[in-house]
Amino acid sequence: MRVSVLDAPGKLRLEERPVPVPGPGEVLVRIASVGVCGSDTHYYREGRIGPYVVESPLVLGHEASGRVEAVGDGVDPARVGTRVSLEPGIPQPYSAETLSGHYNLDPAVRFFATPPVDGVFSEYAVHPAAFSHPVPEHVSDDAAALLEPLGVALAARAAGKVQLGNRVLVAGAGPIGLLVSAVCSLAGAEVTLTDVRAERLEQARRYGASGTFTAADAPVPAPEYQVFIDATGAESAVLSGLSRLAPRGRCVLVGMGSDTIAVPVPLIQGRELLITGTFRYANTWPLAVEIASRGLIDLDGLVTSRHGLDDVEAALVAGARDGALKAVVTP
Amino acid sequence: MRVSVLDAPGKLRLEERPVPVPGPGEVLVRIASVGVCGSDTHYYREGRIGPYVVESPLVLGHEASGRVEAVGDGVDPARVGTRVSLEPGIPQPYSAETLSGHYNLDPAVRFFATPPVDGVFSEYAVHPAAFSHPVPEHVSDDAAALLEPLGVALAARAAGKVQLGNRVLVAGAGPIGLLVSAVCSLAGAEVTLTDVRAERLEQARRYGASGTFTAADAPVPAPEYQVFIDATGAESAVLSGLSRLAPRGRCVLVGMGSDTIAVPVPLIQGRELLITGTFRYANTWPLAVEIASRGLIDLDGLVTSRHGLDDVEAALVAGARDGALKAVVTP
Amino acid sequence: MRVSVLDAPGKLRLEERPVPVPGPGEVLVRIASVGVCGSDTHYYREGRIGPYVVESPLVLGHEASGRVEAVGDGVDPARVGTRVSLEPGIPQPYSAETLSGHYNLDPAVRFFATPPVDGVFSEYAVHPAAFSHPVPEHVSDDAAALLEPLGVALAARAAGKVQLGNRVLVAGAGPIGLLVSAVCSLAGAEVTLTDVRAERLEQARRYGASGTFTAADAPVPAPEYQVFIDATGAESAVLSGLSRLAPRGRCVLVGMGSDTIAVPVPLIQGRELLITGTFRYANTWPLAVEIASRGLIDLDGLVTSRHGLDDVEAALVAGARDGALKAVVTP
Amino acid sequence: MRVSVLDAPGKLRLEERPVPVPGPGEVLVRIASVGVCGSDTHYYREGRIGPYVVESPLVLGHEASGRVEAVGDGVDPARVGTRVSLEPGIPQPYSAETLSGHYNLDPAVRFFATPPVDGVFSEYAVHPAAFSHPVPEHVSDDAAALLEPLGVALAARAAGKVQLGNRVLVAGAGPIGLLVSAVCSLAGAEVTLTDVRAERLEQARRYGASGTFTAADAPVPAPEYQVFIDATGAESAVLSGLSRLAPRGRCVLVGMGSDTIAVPVPLIQGRELLITGTFRYANTWPLAVEIASRGLIDLDGLVTSRHGLDDVEAALVAGARDGALKAVVTP
Repeated sequence: MRVSVLDAPGKLRLEERPVPVPGPGEVLVRIASVGVCGSDTHYYREGRIGPYVVESPLVLGHEASGRVEAVGDGVDPARVGTRVSLEPGIPQPYSAETLSGHYNLDPAVRFFATPPVDGVFSEYAVHPAAFSHPVPEHVSDDAAALLEPLGVALAARAAGKVQLGNRVLVAGAGPIGLLVSAVCSLAGAEVTLTDVRAERLEQARRYGASGTFTAADAPVPAPEYQVFIDATGAESAVLSGLSRLAPRGRCVLVGMGSDTIAVPVPLIQGRELLITGTFRYANTWPLAVEIASRGLIDLDGLVTSRHGLDDVEAALVAGARDGALKAVVTP
Repeated sequence: MRVSVLDAPGKLRLEERPVPVPGPGEVLVRIASVGVCGSDTHYYREGRIGPYVVESPLVLGHEASGRVEAVGDGVDPARVGTRVSLEPGIPQPYSAETLSGHYNLDPAVRFFATPPVDGVFSEYAVHPAAFSHPVPEHVSDDAAALLEPLGVALAARAAGKVQLGNRVLVAGAGPIGLLVSAVCSLAGAEVTLTDVRAERLEQARRYGASGTFTAADAPVPAPEYQVFIDATGAESAVLSGLSRLAPRGRCVLVGMGSDTIAVPVPLIQGRELLITGTFRYANTWPLAVEIASRGLIDLDGLVTSRHGLDDVEAALVAGARDGALKAVVTP
Repeated sequence: MRVSVLDAPGKLRLEERPVPVPGPGEVLVRIASVGVCGSDTHYYREGRIGPYVVESPLVLGHEASGRVEAVGDGVDPARVGTRVSLEPGIPQPYSAETLSGHYNLDPAVRFFATPPVDGVFSEYAVHPAAFSHPVPEHVSDDAAALLEPLGVALAARAAGKVQLGNRVLVAGAGPIGLLVSAVCSLAGAEVTLTDVRAERLEQARRYGASGTFTAADAPVPAPEYQVFIDATGAESAVLSGLSRLAPRGRCVLVGMGSDTIAVPVPLIQGRELLITGTFRYANTWPLAVEIASRGLIDLDGLVTSRHGLDDVEAALVAGARDGALKAVVTP
Repeated sequence: MRVSVLDAPGKLRLEERPVPVPGPGEVLVRIASVGVCGSDTHYYREGRIGPYVVESPLVLGHEASGRVEAVGDGVDPARVGTRVSLEPGIPQPYSAETLSGHYNLDPAVRFFATPPVDGVFSEYAVHPAAFSHPVPEHVSDDAAALLEPLGVALAARAAGKVQLGNRVLVAGAGPIGLLVSAVCSLAGAEVTLTDVRAERLEQARRYGASGTFTAADAPVPAPEYQVFIDATGAESAVLSGLSRLAPRGRCVLVGMGSDTIAVPVPLIQGRELLITGTFRYANTWPLAVEIASRGLIDLDGLVTSRHGLDDVEAALVAGARDGALKAVVTP
């Protein structure tokens, strides 16, 4: 099978590898679609993200869907031929974090495209059956792949405890911000979306936001939101968002960018605000599948370019183009 | 009656005023003991705290106990002669914050010794009966006054959701830090107390801490605490505390000091930490009375100096002395 | 003004009374619409509900809207002429329950049409301004009145912690059940509505339910719902609902009827189910106004008959007719 | 090795079996102490508990401690020679319940002494290393075994959200009720213990209760407790407890007995009470080990008789004797 391999920053090549064989509890999946995430682009450009360094050839790509082609011992053979969305992080089964419901925080979790674990810019992959979630036929390959970023949005909503009647401010109108907006709207919130670039807000209404503003036309800060979710990682966006939180409001840091944010202590105390952050997600696939299956969020609408395995380089840099939201690789 | 009045930073004087008359729903209280808080000292020295500026003569003091001498309309006359601990903040009865259980966040709350509302460094005060909490005879005047800082500690515990089995780190071994330590220990937590000065940690075990360390002998950061409560207001203490929080750990900012704290975003996200702050307290008096009544925390042990109404100046600066914890004024 | 007075079970008459004068903090409201609730009918027929007995002439009616005609001391005169929805229960301002956010549980709450407190089947009423909630002009009088049962539904949703992705079963397709269904759907739940009578389920989809079943065609019990909300009060409905709850599922008892329900202990324990009940509501008007204002739930669609003040008797018995949902009295 | 086998109700015998060999991820444990639980006695007497029927020879006993004698593949050999407390229920690693933190509710959980899974009235047992919790040397064998019922108590406290300042009523002064009392007291609650027999309340103070009453001298019901935990399973005890719950109080059903309890709906609704039940426990061992290690609860004090493997029959019926609390088998 063909696999796209990153040797060093900026150096991708295709390699032939044998099709892997599923072990006990695993399935072999013919990969159909893989979304490109900012972290893939970051590894491609910089060769590292924080403590994770690309030291030997690495396969990128972690938002994937496909079809089961074979199963290992202990897996129902009826799964062969069915479609799946792959959850990319596999925790240790009996770690303290796994047993307490926060398996994303298991320090030994193995996650696609995080050195030294390979991702799925490849024609096939083996994966634990339990993390290969069944997807109905009427959900597209791309949508099935994008259940991963949808999971990021669902985790952000859960961390923000967004519920019926909340006024929610979302910063950042990229794929994650749009999905957060859509998810919060589904949860009965009234969502305002903000971004530095006005043209990125054109999709706002389609993804559930009933109001928008840019940094340039931002209203005077007032304590009007119960929840603020940042999908930019920019300190200025976070500080603006915090200043708009009502008493006991909640701020969720999803975007990655600034290493530190100088939070205003008197504001945190005076309004008893709460700040938290999310690390990926846990237990989001069942609801993500349901949302995709019922067509409640337009996942396909996020795809702005499509690339073959021999074109991964273009896919990895596509996000920088005007109007780009999500590139997908279809091996 | 005699009242201690602050005219300008550093300028205190005694004034004769008529004893006030309790209005409907109010009681007249003969003040017995008033604890001195850092905010009193701050107003005395600087003439302001953030947006609150001493623009006309102000009476300081907000941690008070006393005995009811008369009651206004609608208050049970049987309360005359009984002892009370005064809750210093009175919210609007039907504001949104009051009706939702967070009356401390009511923007129209009237709080002792916060311009332009007078405090209780005086021989008498009138106060709403509902916020003049009955205290049994065997609780001392000082302890009854110190139910106020105990309320700050109870609110911090609640914000940190400290419960049985939590490992809790408390920074700052002043009166608030010691009370937070004691309260968390009562709640079944295993408490470690830290301070920059080793001699301040001598009281640690008496106030519930089973371990201590100073900045000088601080262990290498490890994710070992479920909750960190800061009673210093110092950025360095907060950053050290955050680095010691386990996944999904909670940080409560109680101390006032640094205006901003540069929180490390990857840590917040990677461990899904939660940061919040408290503003005074709400609904803490019933439990505080119970704790004092059962002698579960040594409130009297916090008192390190006692001053008359003509000696308020000395009381206000007593906190700077080595070994000082809490000065009280006994009008 | 004319007032409809209940002297004894089944004995209603119109009486002339002076228009009341608003006291401090109160408004005088010209009543526009009053919804009829099952409890009004119960008092009319039986003369009592549990411990509440009609011992002297009582005015029924507690779901009301109107227009402010005058204001008492301390109320902004600009409120004259504005429209309001009346929250019928007024708690003691500083009771423990009020200060902790559960003012509906204040034992001294004064509630319309609950002996000995008069209701609002009358041309005018005085009411505390803080509990006379502003309603925009484009919301109908009937809808403004029906924010009261909408509040019951919002409280049920909150008690059930219904949120995005929950599968929710609602029993009872009367006004409360339909509103609960609509509210849970708004909150992102997938709602199934059940009733003993198939024709009552015809409105299900309009009020947010995506599935329905009757007792006759009920599926075999399976643990498929996260939340069950009972709006029937019938033991058989509750037991059926409990049997369909997934592990850690929540049951909310809203309907009144059976005095006891024989809950199956092994089921409660084996699935760690949770059963609770709601008593009216607290803090629901702001969201109810928002929902009505944005037209998110068809409140007017619940009105199936309209009656004058001289026709209250017909209004009180209208609920028993086939197809009847909500009768309103328009004084 | 010798094993005690139940062939049919009342029919126990000793059998020689080969010492089992630990598989991957497992340890071989030399059993040191096994507590006898009411469920063991029930299987012994009736041959079944609800749907679980003893259809082939079964080994009873599920509260066990011992010493590791050998380890399987993938287990640190350094564990040989260390002491362990065995958690008796092993869930499927990647089931929905396990991944969401409620592994006790995994329908495929394998639990000691629950047909057809054997328990540990035997000289040796193999068990997953992850569920064989390390115990320090200074904790006795009996105490290490009794971390199991302590876990039941910890789960009850967690379900009741018992925390600092709660007034808690516990019904039933057997081993579970005493441990619940002790755990709630550690959590900062003020505990009252009740039982039908006065002599069973003699241990109350030793296990954290500050008050007691019997059915005979029960005070008039008043809404004074925030939490009621039933460890009797008797309907009368539960109804009495419910009547004593304050508004928004919580009832936790731990004891097994009555198949149904006729809960009073107007009380549930009028006070917005909450009723739930617990099924065993999840994630309780770390805290239980900590409590035993620090000597915070006198687990050894619960042991009222000790029996050899050839005396299991006596151990199983010992609970019926006056003054009996917990029998242990020491193979």
